[in-house]
Parts: sequence; structure tokens; C-alpha cells
Amino acid sequence: MTDKPLDVLAIGNAIVDVIADADDAFLVAQGLDKGAMRLVDEVEAVALYGKMGPGRESSGGSAGNTVAGLAALGLSAGFIGQVADDELGKIFAHDLRATGVEFGTPTRNDVGASARCLILVTPDAQRTMNTFLGAAQRLPASAISAAHVATARILYLEGYLWDPEEPRAAMEAAIDAARAAGTKVAFSLSDAFCISRHRDGFNRLIDDGRIDILFANEDEILSLTGAADFDSAVAAVAPKVLVLAVTRGAAGAVAVSGQERAEVAAEPIAKLVDTTGAGDLFAAGFLAGQARGKSLEVSLRLGAIAAAEVIQHYGARPEADLRALAGELL
Amino acid sequence: MTDKPLDVLAIGNAIVDVIADADDAFLVAQGLDKGAMRLVDEVEAVALYGKMGPGRESSGGSAGNTVAGLAALGLSAGFIGQVADDELGKIFAHDLRATGVEFGTPTRNDVGASARCLILVTPDAQRTMNTFLGAAQRLPASAISAAHVATARILYLEGYLWDPEEPRAAMEAAIDAARAAGTKVAFSLSDAFCISRHRDGFNRLIDDGRIDILFANEDEILSLTGAADFDSAVAAVAPKVLVLAVTRGAAGAVAVSGQERAEVAAEPIAKLVDTTGAGDLFAAGFLAGQARGKSLEVSLRLGAIAAAEVIQHYGARPEADLRALAGELL
Repeated sequence: MTDKPLDVLAIGNAIVDVIADADDAFLVAQGLDKGAMRLVDEVEAVALYGKMGPGRESSGGSAGNTVAGLAALGLSAGFIGQVADDELGKIFAHDLRATGVEFGTPTRNDVGASARCLILVTPDAQRTMNTFLGAAQRLPASAISAAHVATARILYLEGYLWDPEEPRAAMEAAIDAARAAGTKVAFSLSDAFCISRHRDGFNRLIDDGRIDILFANEDEILSLTGAADFDSAVAAVAPKVLVLAVTRGAAGAVAVSGQERAEVAAEPIAKLVDTTGAGDLFAAGFLAGQARGKSLEVSLRLGAIAAAEVIQHYGARPEADLRALAGELL
Repeated sequence: MTDKPLDVLAIGNAIVDVIADADDAFLVAQGLDKGAMRLVDEVEAVALYGKMGPGRESSGGSAGNTVAGLAALGLSAGFIGQVADDELGKIFAHDLRATGVEFGTPTRNDVGASARCLILVTPDAQRTMNTFLGAAQRLPASAISAAHVATARILYLEGYLWDPEEPRAAMEAAIDAARAAGTKVAFSLSDAFCISRHRDGFNRLIDDGRIDILFANEDEILSLTGAADFDSAVAAVAPKVLVLAVTRGAAGAVAVSGQERAEVAAEPIAKLVDTTGAGDLFAAGFLAGQARGKSLEVSLRLGAIAAAEVIQHYGARPEADLRALAGELL
């Protein structure tokens, strides 16, 4: 890759997570689908919050977690996302900057409250997410400049932000800027429900060759392709992107690039606490490897190491020294 | 004790904790005294927050943590404390009620922002606390009624709230109400610096026989008495209260009541993560035992069990099932 000051510039939802324990009966009583992410409006968010157990708040957002992980791995990363001028917005900005990530998107005070994600963690460590997006979905195209995108080796986009019109237009423009500047475009499919809302749009991006590095999990790649099994789904998508990286939870992860294919097992862990952020941190490790020109296998291992750290504690941002955990790999 | 619907009613600072990792060099650079709690104004709080690492927010406050622990142990508990009508205030109220604690103090919007405590956790798991008290120190006497105090077996007060005039007057009135209603008065000395500000006032309360159950740690009882060693300090204070409970960190805890004396070792733990809340949860376990008429030794063991749980994770409120951990003891 050409010489760029920023390893990764991400565009994503700027969200503060509110994490609480819950049992399966609570999910059933609230009509929640375990393991899924659903969008809620402010009324529903307030009602669910009132019924939830005590919360632990920490900054999150899928791409935000990924750049925090990249910074913890010692890479240079930037983030673009919208918060309101309120307390949660200040918490989000503080936490992201404190990880070392460059974040300068101006706040807006005309777009409702900052986003929050109410995350219920069941005893099996699965997380069920209820996201009030608020200000996050009002990221305007004006928050992104072609010159800023051009400073990055990799532009990373989260599929979650494809729903609202303004940020979608902003991301489309950012992709154009990236392609013009020799910046690789990485994209996360984010969530199977997200794909069901945007299958055609995502497939068009991929078919048009606008995505270089595609992240998905098993459910997502099956949902995207409609394929009957995992191998067929991978075979259908891999030829359309430079690199395809697919996570399979405890079964590890697979990456394909042209004729090359690599696979890693999940890293062994002492105790599974909360899977929130697993995919985001996998992306951080994998992108770190790719930005540094490492092999598919090393990139996968870096992803597995970062994901293993984050699922052993509450919260979606790394707490241990990821740089040290990566050791010789980076 | 007489039959009362509430096991414990506590009056304390309503504070949201913001916890971040820090190294010793950061504490030195900021001129912070490791392990201590200091009060900061809003300007200093904002400046320190800007320099701190990413935070994890969770509701705290010394007495708030204690009642959350009591509820987790299956006891009925209430809390009186002041928050503003802002986001942190809503978080505090939600979290406390979600633990099962009765909390109905009306919010005030004329007293500044809700309190927050910036907690820096060093690799040795010690916490250095910087508290902006804001609304918490504006708890008015009108928030406390004698009839409410009379519903509790034990009234629990935190020494931290002795600084500002309004809450101090409120607590004095609450002690009067408790004594008239056959409600026992428990008091935590909170902090050695807190004692240096109020040594005479605290000694007067104790000398006047207005405290039934006194909580202190080793530093605090030495500071209170000016005694040369631990045993002399305990011997000086114990005759003046019904029950004296003193924690000694990893060395366990001691309780004295009249001629009776009991001592327990600290509970073994798998990994020390963050000592925030250790004293508060010790008080919860000990008060649970006292409210249920258990022996000094059982009360101490309950305190040690609750303290051991909270120091093995970030945050000052219990996350594991304390009721199950207490087992046959309660």
C-alpha cells in the first residue's frame, strides 16, 4: 500500500453501551430474540431501560470498538460518527480519544439524543442488543472529506450505518474518495437482520467491486448469498472481493483471497463472560494484520487474539494490553 | 429488634462512578495520592476526565453500594440521596431501583449536576478517587421523614456526607428519629481524610452514644483515636458503641461488642481486579448479619464474602449472586 499516515479510518454509529445481566425468561417476557440486534425508538428504549437490571455503561458502537482495538494494537486509527451535545455524547468522545483514536466529528444539537445500545447479557454470555440510534443516524455527508479519507490506508465501514439516508450517502461518497486515493475499502455486514434490510444494496456494492475487504459471520454470509451451506456461500462471495474474512464463533475464522485460503481456530479462553464486541475486535486484529501487510493467516490469528480478549470481560472495548498479546505477530 | 418492614435505610452520596485504568506515573503527574479519595470541583473534574483513559461507568456511592449489596443478599433496603434531573442522575436512580432498593428522593434541578467519582485503578488494583459531589451534597433535611426512618431496623449513614451542612443536619435529625423509634444507628467513618475534617464531630457522636454500629478500617480508627497501634485504637472505641466492626484489608476484619470479640480472615479470591467498593460491600454483609440477628462471627464472614466478590471485577456493585454465595449463613 502507499504511504498513508492513518492505518484505518472508520465510519460508524457512535453509541454508548448500557450492559445488564438478564435471564432467558426476561428476554421471552420482553419478546426479545436472543443474540439479535434490533432497533428501538426512544419510547421503547426508555421502557426497556426501566425494566432492565442495573447497567454498566461503556462506549461502544461496532466500528468504534474496532478502531479502539486498532489503537490498542498500536495502529493509528480515526473515527467519524455523530453524537449529540449531551452527556452520553461527551462520554463517547472522551472514551474514544482516550484510546488514542483521532475523533473530530462536530457534535450536533438538532438531531435528538446520542445513541445508546441496551445490551442484555444472558448466563450463556450471549448478548441481545436494543439500539436507540438517535443522533448517530444523522451523520451528514459534510462530516466526511475526500482529503481525510485519502490519509488512510484502509477505510472501514459498518453495515449498521447503511439504514439511514444521510450516513449512507456519506459512506457512498467516502467509498468513491477511497477508490480515487488508493485507500482500500473494508466493509462489515454487521448483522443478519441488517442484511435482510439491505441485501440488494450490499450485493450491488460487492458485485460492483467497490469492497476490497469484506467481513461477515456465518449467518451473515448465508443471509447475503441465500446459499444452502457455508462453503457455497464463501465460494460465491470470495471471487468478488480482494479479501473475504468470515468468523464462525467458537469454531474460529476463515479468510480467502484469490486462490489463497487460511483458517484458524478460536483462541482458548479462561472464561466466557460477554460476547459483546467479539466481531468488532476480530475485525480490529484482522485489519491490523492487513494494514501491516501480514499474511491471511497472521491476520486471522490477530483477529482471534483480539476477539478472545474482549469476550472475557464485560464491555466491547479491550481492557488488556492487546499489543503485548499480539507479541511477535505484529 | 422490633418488627420493621425495612432491614436497612441508608443516607448517602448518590454518585455515578467513572472507572479507568491508570499507571503510577499518571497519578504522580496529576499530583494524586494513591488510594485516597479527594473532592474536586467541576473545573478540576472536567480537566482530570480529559486526561484519563477510557471509562466504564456504573452507579456507586459508598452507602449506595452497601444497600445494593444488601438487596443482592436478599434483604430489604432503602436509600435516600440527592441527584439532579440529568442523565447521570437517571442512571443512578435506575441502577439502584433495578437492584431492588427502594429509592424515592425527589430530583432537584437547582443544585448543579449529579455527582460523579473519577476512579483511577492502578495495576495493583488500588483505586484513587476524585469525587465531584455536585447535587449529592445538596440533600435537604426535608428529604428525610421520621416516619420513614422508623420503618427501618437499621439506619446506615456514611461519614462522607458529613461535609456539607444540609445533609449533615438531615442526618442529625435522622439519628434523633432513629433513637426515638428503636431503629439502630450504623455509621461508616468512610475515609481517613474525612475523619481529619470531622474528628471532633465524629468523636462527639460516638461519645454521646448516638452510634450503635460503627464501621471503620485500620487507618480510620487510628486517625479517629490518635492511638499508637491498632489494638489500643479498638480498645478506646469499642466500649462506646454497641458493635464496632473494623476491616484490615487482606488481613481480614475484627468485630467487638461488649466483652465479645470475633475475627475473620479475608476470603480467598481468584484474582484481585479493583478494590473499589470493598469496604461498602463488607458493610453490606455485616449489616445483613446484624439485621438478621446473627453472631458477630457470622456477620463478619458475610462481610468478607461480599467484599471478596466485589474486588474481583471492575465496579463497586455486586455482579455475582451474593445470596447464593452467603449460602447457609443467612
